[in-house]
Amino acid sequence: MNIGVLGTGTVGEAIASALIEKKHHVKMGSRTASNEKASAWVKKAGKNASQGTFDDAASFGDLVFLCLNGEYALDAVKSIQLNHVKEKIVVDLTNPLDFSHGMPPTILDEYSIVSLGEKIQQELSTAYVVKTLNTVNYKLMVDATIVNNGDHHLFVCGNNSDAKNKVKHFLVDNFHWKPHHFVDVGDIKSARTVEAIVPFWVTVMQALQTPLFNFKIVH
Amino acid sequence: MNIGVLGTGTVGEAIASALIEKKHHVKMGSRTASNEKASAWVKKAGKNASQGTFDDAASFGDLVFLCLNGEYALDAVKSIQLNHVKEKIVVDLTNPLDFSHGMPPTILDEYSIVSLGEKIQQELSTAYVVKTLNTVNYKLMVDATIVNNGDHHLFVCGNNSDAKNKVKHFLVDNFHWKPHHFVDVGDIKSARTVEAIVPFWVTVMQALQTPLFNFKIVH
Repeated sequence: MNIGVLGTGTVGEAIASALIEKKHHVKMGSRTASNEKASAWVKKAGKNASQGTFDDAASFGDLVFLCLNGEYALDAVKSIQLNHVKEKIVVDLTNPLDFSHGMPPTILDEYSIVSLGEKIQQELSTAYVVKTLNTVNYKLMVDATIVNNGDHHLFVCGNNSDAKNKVKHFLVDNFHWKPHHFVDVGDIKSARTVEAIVPFWVTVMQALQTPLFNFKIVH
Repeated sequence: MNIGVLGTGTVGEAIASALIEKKHHVKMGSRTASNEKASAWVKKAGKNASQGTFDDAASFGDLVFLCLNGEYALDAVKSIQLNHVKEKIVVDLTNPLDFSHGMPPTILDEYSIVSLGEKIQQELSTAYVVKTLNTVNYKLMVDATIVNNGDHHLFVCGNNSDAKNKVKHFLVDNFHWKPHHFVDVGDIKSARTVEAIVPFWVTVMQALQTPLFNFKIVH
């Protein structure tokens, strides 16, 4: 599959590299088409890897992953042409964290009522935005089995059920998530609360002294 | 033990009634000494139950539980005389939820940076405030075994380690929590993130269609 990965940070590189390993064709998007981190990644990742602007990557992908820093994510999204993501699934991994008040982080003021996920969906009105993976460490994103043999939960929200199901299948097929370990928490409005638990994730990481953990819902 | 329970709502009544069952002496505190809900509870709960103002209940208790509506909790706390809670442990169960933007709730603006738990500790400077139990349903608070045989986690934060340990022991002895199911997430500043996951708890409750669940950390 052709996949666009927007973002050149730790998360973007982890997702992009894992997708290359699964034989997908991946274009890494960044603010400029010649971004150095993207160039270095392409060189390392081989013939199925390429780079471009955010819009290039979104246009290239049949599926798009947003692996952007929460502070700049909406600006990046605004640079995408709507017809380039028409009826495409956009997986939103972003977290609008604010570290300016010290640790633990808070949620950036502008997303404290209406979440970043919702604003991305409003912006990309032609696409199906599915928020997920934002509540786990990047190593766990691409291999669910590295924590508790994969027995833990991933939260998924978005307005389109079919798109959510396709994302679940994709994560099962590519990143070892299990079908019964997804919790569908509703439409994209639930991004408010799914984003809001990430500062707590940081608190737990500090308490456990490892980022390799996850939440499991028991009932 | 003499225990003060501040609050006459669902949580206050659940905690107070469970403590009476465990043979403690409980004074339920409310804004007025003659609150009708507290009177009804005292009548039902029997000879070890009594009622009074918030300050009366705090003064009576060797241990104090804050089971107050987050919107009014700080006002209630301000009515307590500092010498009445000197060196006492105050267990803070409050959540500063704002339902005015619809579901899921958000955190009240005034507590979005500095949490309610921290402001309560600032106010009750002579006491040891321990935030816990705020992330579970009231039925689960008083009997940890009703979900997944008690195999799930409760988050505890506060500035005084000895106070946190005493609260853990109390919950083990009285409400069937297990020693290894507490996650100490640090000092009272962590109340920021522990309070911030409660809107997510509401989202999960809606998805599961039951309030009888809890989070388990796996690693």
